[in-house]
Amino acid sequence: MKSLKKRILSGMRPTGDLHIGHLFGVLENWVNFQQTHDCFFMVADWHALMGEYKRSSAISKAIESNIADWLAAGIDPEKASIFVQSDVPEHLELYALFSTLTPIPWLERCPTYKEQLQELKDKDIFTHAFLGYPVLQAADIALYRAHQVPVGKDQLPHLELTREIVRRFHHIFDCDIFPEPEPILDNQRNKILGIDRRKMSKSYNNHIGLGSPKEELSSKVKQMVTDPKRLRLKDPGHPDDCNVFTYYSFFEPSQEAEVKEWCEKAQKGCSECKSILSDHMNEKLEPWREKRKYFLDRPDDLKDILQAGASSARIQAQETLSQVRDVVAWRKFYDV
Amino acid sequence: MKSLKKRILSGMRPTGDLHIGHLFGVLENWVNFQQTHDCFFMVADWHALMGEYKRSSAISKAIESNIADWLAAGIDPEKASIFVQSDVPEHLELYALFSTLTPIPWLERCPTYKEQLQELKDKDIFTHAFLGYPVLQAADIALYRAHQVPVGKDQLPHLELTREIVRRFHHIFDCDIFPEPEPILDNQRNKILGIDRRKMSKSYNNHIGLGSPKEELSSKVKQMVTDPKRLRLKDPGHPDDCNVFTYYSFFEPSQEAEVKEWCEKAQKGCSECKSILSDHMNEKLEPWREKRKYFLDRPDDLKDILQAGASSARIQAQETLSQVRDVVAWRKFYDV
Repeated sequence: MKSLKKRILSGMRPTGDLHIGHLFGVLENWVNFQQTHDCFFMVADWHALMGEYKRSSAISKAIESNIADWLAAGIDPEKASIFVQSDVPEHLELYALFSTLTPIPWLERCPTYKEQLQELKDKDIFTHAFLGYPVLQAADIALYRAHQVPVGKDQLPHLELTREIVRRFHHIFDCDIFPEPEPILDNQRNKILGIDRRKMSKSYNNHIGLGSPKEELSSKVKQMVTDPKRLRLKDPGHPDDCNVFTYYSFFEPSQEAEVKEWCEKAQKGCSECKSILSDHMNEKLEPWREKRKYFLDRPDDLKDILQAGASSARIQAQETLSQVRDVVAWRKFYDV
Repeated sequence: MKSLKKRILSGMRPTGDLHIGHLFGVLENWVNFQQTHDCFFMVADWHALMGEYKRSSAISKAIESNIADWLAAGIDPEKASIFVQSDVPEHLELYALFSTLTPIPWLERCPTYKEQLQELKDKDIFTHAFLGYPVLQAADIALYRAHQVPVGKDQLPHLELTREIVRRFHHIFDCDIFPEPEPILDNQRNKILGIDRRKMSKSYNNHIGLGSPKEELSSKVKQMVTDPKRLRLKDPGHPDDCNVFTYYSFFEPSQEAEVKEWCEKAQKGCSECKSILSDHMNEKLEPWREKRKYFLDRPDDLKDILQAGASSARIQAQETLSQVRDVVAWRKFYDV
């Protein structure tokens, strides 16, 4: 019997170890989606390579550690399809097909495109593949005929592009194969910022790794920017302007009122406040570190999970691609 | 034992039936290369789709008729690898890998790129795939580690781009896998022009099909532009300015002197001259039409030839791709 649940596709680029931003921003949501949706969770290694071809050797390593983190978070291969993008070659075929009908201006006008060219100048990503990044995303989504895609606000133009590509495909080949995917917008509460208050990202080196040892975590917390208006210990603080206070809301919400008071009344200094936060974080993350270590010690199990995931994903991918080949009359010589 | 012959890759886009330009410009050369080179001849269906996605259904049909023409010309599956590009999925993987490291300006500055955007406005080819056309060519050549590629002068910038992409790949991944392919320039004698004296091309509708029936051929010859300075029957003609005279050099060189004389002395009119040419052409092409019909009547044989060709091409493609994956550390998680 076909699932009545709506289908979701979501993915992560394996560019390095995951950080606490992924935990609150992505993995917690994924665990919930497993109850409500038919889930496809993808390690987007082709997307990683598009930005990181100069350090491609990090990608294989990251796949292993990311999957360990997914499992530690409660992503369950019994409840969701977990797979690596490059294990399903159908992605490249649909990407190449979509690429034939995607006008360049559609890609150039993506706000994220110019932003990233600007932000990541040292990566030499003014390349053909990086321009086609959203075309591959469209192929990923369409290949599984996902109805919904969890996205951040900044990714909305990419999803709109997927919808445009799908519509153009339907128009040119006079068919109606793919759903036009709808966004599920991130819960903004779930955005934890980097230690410098920018978006948390390894590219900005402002992240706290999920697998970071205690000391490393504490040292990162010590570097956090606090309320800039509190110059001296005796000055009252403004918790609502303080990133450290936000971290409490993620890691120890029960203590928020207390922290607010000691900050506004200048009862504790920022340094002590950070040290207490570090303890909470380490306490919460310790079981996580153990689970991830458990999986990392069993690479063969990880491989089995990914191979089974790829097999089940390919069934869906091949079914879609077969319909696509029919309407495009593509690779049909042998069927004539 | 490895062949000591240099390896050639050459291909044709299956966008429709072949014409006499392909016979003199390509197929005659290919037949000769079979004696001197290790030959890979490819039906470039992905390249066809990049320009012709709006009439994709013509591609499968063209594959069949093109292969029949290749065989009629003497291309021999015992002497050369004959295969369809999309039967060898390794093309797309190497294309995607090369695409990650190919800067967009390299592609935009290709002279053929802007020229074709201009010439073929009605085809909507200002697309991501069409921009990447030369990247796929680079992947085609590199996948078989071809040493030489037969090209026309207009294609030299594409081959130079292949060399640049290969060098960049070697530089980034610190390796030396691919030969830098050298051009084998077309013999200019071998360029037969279209009936309007532009380059012969189906896009310009100025071609004479290899499979055209007699009457159609004669009608096309009647439309040919002759010496524009010969206005009246009694005016002396200038054979060196006449496209019809050039056609004699291809189809009945023994008669060239005679034609020159009747033209310059205004002994025969252009209409009669064309009619004699038509007879020669039909005489020469009749056995060809029979051979092509022989193969077209045996589609299962054609399929067998292409499947065997794809298998043998894949052996080489997979060997190359395996080395590529090693140096890029790509898809290596399962080998760790």
